Amino acid sequence: MSREIRAGLVQIDEYGPWTVSPEPRRETDLQSLQASLFADFAAFIGERDGYAFYGRFDNMYAVANEATPDDFRRFQRRVRTRYPVTVSVGLGAASTPAAALGVASERLQAAGGAQDGGRSEAMAVGDAPESGDTGSVTVAHFDVVDVTGEHTDRRNAVDVTLSIRRATLALATHLRSEHGGLAHFVGGDNVIAVCPDLDPAAYETAVDHVATETGIELQVGIGRGATAHAAGDAAKHALERCRETGTRIHGADRVPADH
Amino acid sequence: MSREIRAGLVQIDEYGPWTVSPEPRRETDLQSLQASLFADFAAFIGERDGYAFYGRFDNMYAVANEATPDDFRRFQRRVRTRYPVTVSVGLGAASTPAAALGVASERLQAAGGAQDGGRSEAMAVGDAPESGDTGSVTVAHFDVVDVTGEHTDRRNAVDVTLSIRRATLALATHLRSEHGGLAHFVGGDNVIAVCPDLDPAAYETAVDHVATETGIELQVGIGRGATAHAAGDAAKHALERCRETGTRIHGADRVPADH
Amino acid sequence: MSREIRAGLVQIDEYGPWTVSPEPRRETDLQSLQASLFADFAAFIGERDGYAFYGRFDNMYAVANEATPDDFRRFQRRVRTRYPVTVSVGLGAASTPAAALGVASERLQAAGGAQDGGRSEAMAVGDAPESGDTGSVTVAHFDVVDVTGEHTDRRNAVDVTLSIRRATLALATHLRSEHGGLAHFVGGDNVIAVCPDLDPAAYETAVDHVATETGIELQVGIGRGATAHAAGDAAKHALERCRETGTRIHGADRVPADH
Amino acid sequence: MSREIRAGLVQIDEYGPWTVSPEPRRETDLQSLQASLFADFAAFIGERDGYAFYGRFDNMYAVANEATPDDFRRFQRRVRTRYPVTVSVGLGAASTPAAALGVASERLQAAGGAQDGGRSEAMAVGDAPESGDTGSVTVAHFDVVDVTGEHTDRRNAVDVTLSIRRATLALATHLRSEHGGLAHFVGGDNVIAVCPDLDPAAYETAVDHVATETGIELQVGIGRGATAHAAGDAAKHALERCRETGTRIHGADRVPADH
Repeated sequence: MSREIRAGLVQIDEYGPWTVSPEPRRETDLQSLQASLFADFAAFIGERDGYAFYGRFDNMYAVANEATPDDFRRFQRRVRTRYPVTVSVGLGAASTPAAALGVASERLQAAGGAQDGGRSEAMAVGDAPESGDTGSVTVAHFDVVDVTGEHTDRRNAVDVTLSIRRATLALATHLRSEHGGLAHFVGGDNVIAVCPDLDPAAYETAVDHVATETGIELQVGIGRGATAHAAGDAAKHALERCRETGTRIHGADRVPADH
Repeated sequence: MSREIRAGLVQIDEYGPWTVSPEPRRETDLQSLQASLFADFAAFIGERDGYAFYGRFDNMYAVANEATPDDFRRFQRRVRTRYPVTVSVGLGAASTPAAALGVASERLQAAGGAQDGGRSEAMAVGDAPESGDTGSVTVAHFDVVDVTGEHTDRRNAVDVTLSIRRATLALATHLRSEHGGLAHFVGGDNVIAVCPDLDPAAYETAVDHVATETGIELQVGIGRGATAHAAGDAAKHALERCRETGTRIHGADRVPADH
Repeated sequence: MSREIRAGLVQIDEYGPWTVSPEPRRETDLQSLQASLFADFAAFIGERDGYAFYGRFDNMYAVANEATPDDFRRFQRRVRTRYPVTVSVGLGAASTPAAALGVASERLQAAGGAQDGGRSEAMAVGDAPESGDTGSVTVAHFDVVDVTGEHTDRRNAVDVTLSIRRATLALATHLRSEHGGLAHFVGGDNVIAVCPDLDPAAYETAVDHVATETGIELQVGIGRGATAHAAGDAAKHALERCRETGTRIHGADRVPADH
Repeated sequence: MSREIRAGLVQIDEYGPWTVSPEPRRETDLQSLQASLFADFAAFIGERDGYAFYGRFDNMYAVANEATPDDFRRFQRRVRTRYPVTVSVGLGAASTPAAALGVASERLQAAGGAQDGGRSEAMAVGDAPESGDTGSVTVAHFDVVDVTGEHTDRRNAVDVTLSIRRATLALATHLRSEHGGLAHFVGGDNVIAVCPDLDPAAYETAVDHVATETGIELQVGIGRGATAHAAGDAAKHALERCRETGTRIHGADRVPADH
């Protein structure tokens, strides 16, 4: 009776070849393209109360229990009319976010390779697309304790970025291998993880692991809800409680009104 | 006789507090905001033939020998009129990109903290702003050998991302500590490093280091030019030669026409 | 028994004063801001199968039977987090689009003036917000017969624009005064009108009126549907039939599948 | 000894056919595309201290004395990498803005038709591209006297828009036919005209003409400078003086510092 998490993988079709044909394209134009595409994707997924992550930019993810295949077809249509590229989509559901993206990855791979000229705007949903009720989602929102005082306002920006990346990678690797969680950097000193239902000790272990491996001290607010947005919003409020009280790990103690 | 590299650090003013006031803002809106701001920054720096990196999104970098303080003031003005936030800027020059960003960081910190309510749109250029000729720039453009066949088309997208992040971090840490280089993930399987003038063996060592640490095999094209764009464009062409010939490290063998 | 059309008016709060404080802002930045805001609004309304019009840019409209007050609150929230301005919204329903926007205008005016410092993010929906079933919507999609051959490829672009504006104004004035319709320029040589249910002779009269007043010959496809998108899509297909067959006025002869 | 004005015409290649192939594209996506393209164009021209106008969206204009053919080639390259369409460009210079756009139009037409499948990214600069010094530019910035009190806060938004469009069209037609000026709606109640050097009585005549034809009372600030931005900024300050003093026509009485 697995609680199901639904995830989507959006992959630009034949992007690598396109970036160098007929000549390598200007890097800043590509950066601008990728960032704009993700900005649109985040807005699109936000409309459905999901969470979006930029991944590798040419492979972006969403955890979006409310988003249907038709919704993703709308996104494909929108990209086709707004960008010089098209996107294929794989959707999957499983008991963990990483497993759900694994299903999505396999389906998309079965529909054709990322640089396969014959694949365009694939919608890989499997034989029996998921339907019916989904379980609730847990979101853990991490940030670095006193990042401004200890890092941003004192160190070379290059080194601060490397430290945060190191902490992110340690955390993401740990949560993925131990719990099938999906953790992603979301800007500043923030890392958001979508997780299965874990007990608080698991987060304590994760935070300790990151401190030991990288010397970076994290705090985390945890929320749960029917959608990634609802869970994440509760997590943000819980993280505010960490900041106010100095506790490192705080669960949601209220269900915030939707906004 | 130092060849000077000029770098800019752009930091959103009081961003952390803003993201949670009066309540935590919707995550997907923040993701969309940050990505749009970087899309504009990349376009802006691209206009000046520099290279832009998203850093932590609230702290973005540019290597842009041609960009003047007045150019960055234009960017500040543009942000103020297009976004709900403002940005401060630190500029620095030094013989390596990391050192130049270190100077920029110090100047910006001296102008006020990132969450200091009294700092808004600071332009921290030091007492004697850099002027006159700059040296040339080296750009090394790395990617993963056969990323599509070995990774994208075979593995869970979550794990591919983690692998690429691991390789990026190993490379960036190595280049930063050994050579004062600035390496940054730029999407897909691409990492771009702005470096001082190094001999080819240094790149070979870096690539070997990454393979040993992470199991990821990189190839690299290297270019040199008066601007990051010129150097980077040469590097892209050199990387194409790697792809065609199977060599792992390729220097620019031609100066591409500007485009 | 009135078939109800629902319309929304989105107005930037205190925009005029903001554009000149503390000094007049750079015109191209304002142009860029307004166009981006409309691009987002169009995408937002498109998500709800409505049609959006840029109006005066600081006052934008939508005909969107499916959009609820909560949807527009989402748009307000999104603007607040993505732009340096906020927006107020008036919603109205009536038997014609112009009357619906009249109701929306009155409600918004009652909530405070456009330059009233005390009004921010008003949501003016009246005492008893509209609910329940709405009627169907009629969209008429006009363009200029052989615009490329007769105008774009032969005349000064300035004069072509003036001609099309003249035709648009004549059409919009006629449809508004005669039928309570809302006609708006949508780019190129296209004008889209949202109308109550009219018989074909009314469109013939409108097209003749424009030809007499301005010398510009229009053709029009007409569609009907539960949403502006469905009606407009049918109208686009009907307009294609005009182009193929040389008829000036063509009603929808099929209900297109949603896409 | 003509003072030369330089203008650019940017035209989307084969846009009409693209919007309906293979099926008519969703209207709100097209609206969003066009608005984004103009937002980028305005930013691009703003970088060069010019003024940009959306024209018909698929045909956009700029008055940009500082922009070179190479600059416009950069814009073409940027569009190609960011959008699903490409653009062709015609450039012209003449003693009036309308005449300059006439030259640009003819050159572009000579390079191929707007729906000619064989034309892609044309750069139509003529045999001897303009070079050397340009004259100064005059910008007249008009708005409606007490638009908020008389119109926005009192009338149906549909009718306010129609009134402003009517005033814009009357003004633009007059300035074009009498003086070769280029007037364009820029949002709200603002119309910007780029004009040759006229004496104040000409503006008084124009304002009277609009009042007689449409009942709309305009005021205008006039500025002059080496670039459209410099002239337009002076015009904005002059218009502020109209608002403060109640005069209807005000010339620039100071040269604003660049910002």
